[in-house]
Order: sequence, then structure tokens, then C-alpha cells
Amino acid sequence: MFDRILYPTDFSDVSMKAVNYVKQLKKAGTKEVVVLHVIDERTLVVPDVFSGVDFMALENELRRIADEQCNKIVEQFQEVGLSAKFMVKKGIPFLDILKTAQEEDVSLIVIGSHGKSNLEEMLLGSVSEKVIRKAVRPVLVVKR
Amino acid sequence: MFDRILYPTDFSDVSMKAVNYVKQLKKAGTKEVVVLHVIDERTLVVPDVFSGVDFMALENELRRIADEQCNKIVEQFQEVGLSAKFMVKKGIPFLDILKTAQEEDVSLIVIGSHGKSNLEEMLLGSVSEKVIRKAVRPVLVVKR
Repeated sequence: MFDRILYPTDFSDVSMKAVNYVKQLKKAGTKEVVVLHVIDERTLVVPDVFSGVDFMALENELRRIADEQCNKIVEQFQEVGLSAKFMVKKGIPFLDILKTAQEEDVSLIVIGSHGKSNLEEMLLGSVSEKVIRKAVRPVLVVKR
Repeated sequence: MFDRILYPTDFSDVSMKAVNYVKQLKKAGTKEVVVLHVIDERTLVVPDVFSGVDFMALENELRRIADEQCNKIVEQFQEVGLSAKFMVKKGIPFLDILKTAQEEDVSLIVIGSHGKSNLEEMLLGSVSEKVIRKAVRPVLVVKR
């Protein structure tokens, strides 16, 4: 029932809080955790070719930081005896979360209620709200 | 972390499915479950004093059925060694769920993603969406 967990994270405080809930679920049968970070591709769109921003370098840097953070989280899960791996993807966060849940055939998604971009979420609804609405698996929402 | 669970139910299929998730959480530390059914007071408003509907009798009947159903659920929890009690309230479901979560100081809310009134939910959003948005505790949403 809680066998395999998808844990999407944007490294915000509330998503880090959710790590402890995943750990606790080991006792209820969790064996494996897939840690997922999605780099929002909309932040990587070139608004102006003359803007001078090197988006490739930016993406590489975001990936490097994400790899590092994900690695630390994977270690935390492994320390309590869970099997864990991570993925860093580029896309639209809620869509890639849902897609990964299907592909990895997880039994549960554990997610923070709010991400980093509070203003955008107030206007458009949070990533977690969209995940909850569309997911076919149960979702554990950890609050701030 | 999962010590005390509030399990709100409208006896729909998906909320009955959530019963098994609550049971499974016993292994992760759950000790006590509060089963809550809220009779939607908006269905009990007298639209016309001459309508001939005896709303008091209707409410009593709804309570009798709810008591019976809740009792069966409480027994299911007790069978697996959980301590359980139930409450039947009259009010606005999402508000009374949030209020009870506070009053009973639960550590988690386990709820079905959709209730019985599908049309109303499509128009106004589901009870669980409102609970998730406003809750200060984590919420486990069980899907259809």
C-alpha cells in the first residue's frame, strides 16, 4: 500500500519537512523512494536572444545544484534502510510529477503543500494541488 | 507523526477505500482514529414551510443511518487493534472537518478525494480540496 513512494521536491522548507514522513512510512511497508526534482522549463525560456543570459550555463548550474541536493536526500533515506534513487528532469513540474508517478508505478506520492514560488501559487494554484487533482495514486500532503 | 488520525467519511466508495490506508498506518505508529461524519446542514434547510417535508424526522433518520455506518467502521479499526471513536455532526462538511481536526488535535487527516455529490464537486471543488487547502496538519488523500 505504501511500498514505493514518489517524493517530488523543490527543496523548499515544507518539502524538506516531508522527508521525515517518508522515513516514518518505512514502518508501514515502504521499501523504495524515488526522489524527483523538476527544473521548471518555463524559467529557462530565452526572452530575448540579446539578453546576454547564457541559458545553457544556467541550466547546467541548476542541474548541478539539484544533483547535489537530491544526493543528500537519497542518503537520508538510505541511512534509515530505504532503497532510494533520484531523478532530475526538465519540464513542467506538475506534469512531470504525474508522468513519473505512472512510469515508476509508485503506490504513494508524498509532497509539500507549497513550493518556493508563493506568489505564482497564489495566482495559479500550487503544484501540489494540481498533482492531487490529477493523480491516480494516493497523495500525502505535508503542510507548512 | 501518525499518532492520531481524523478520518472524515461520507460513506462513498472512495472514502471506504481510505479505511484500509488508516489500518495500514497502525504499523507507522497510529494509535487512535476519530471517525467523523458531517450531515450537510444545507440539505436540511426548509425551502418552504408548506413543503410537507418533516426535516426533523429526516435529520433523525440521517443520524440513525450515520451512527450505524460509523459504528461498523469503528469496529473495523478496533479489530486491527486501533483505538477508535466516532462523531456525527451537523454543519458544513469541510468546516466541521477542519474544526474537529483542531479540537481533537490529530496528527493526520485521511480523506477520500471525492465524495458522493460529484456534480456539486465539479462546480464548487471537492470537500477534500477545501480541507487540504486550509488544514494545518498533513492530509492523506485517497483516490478513486
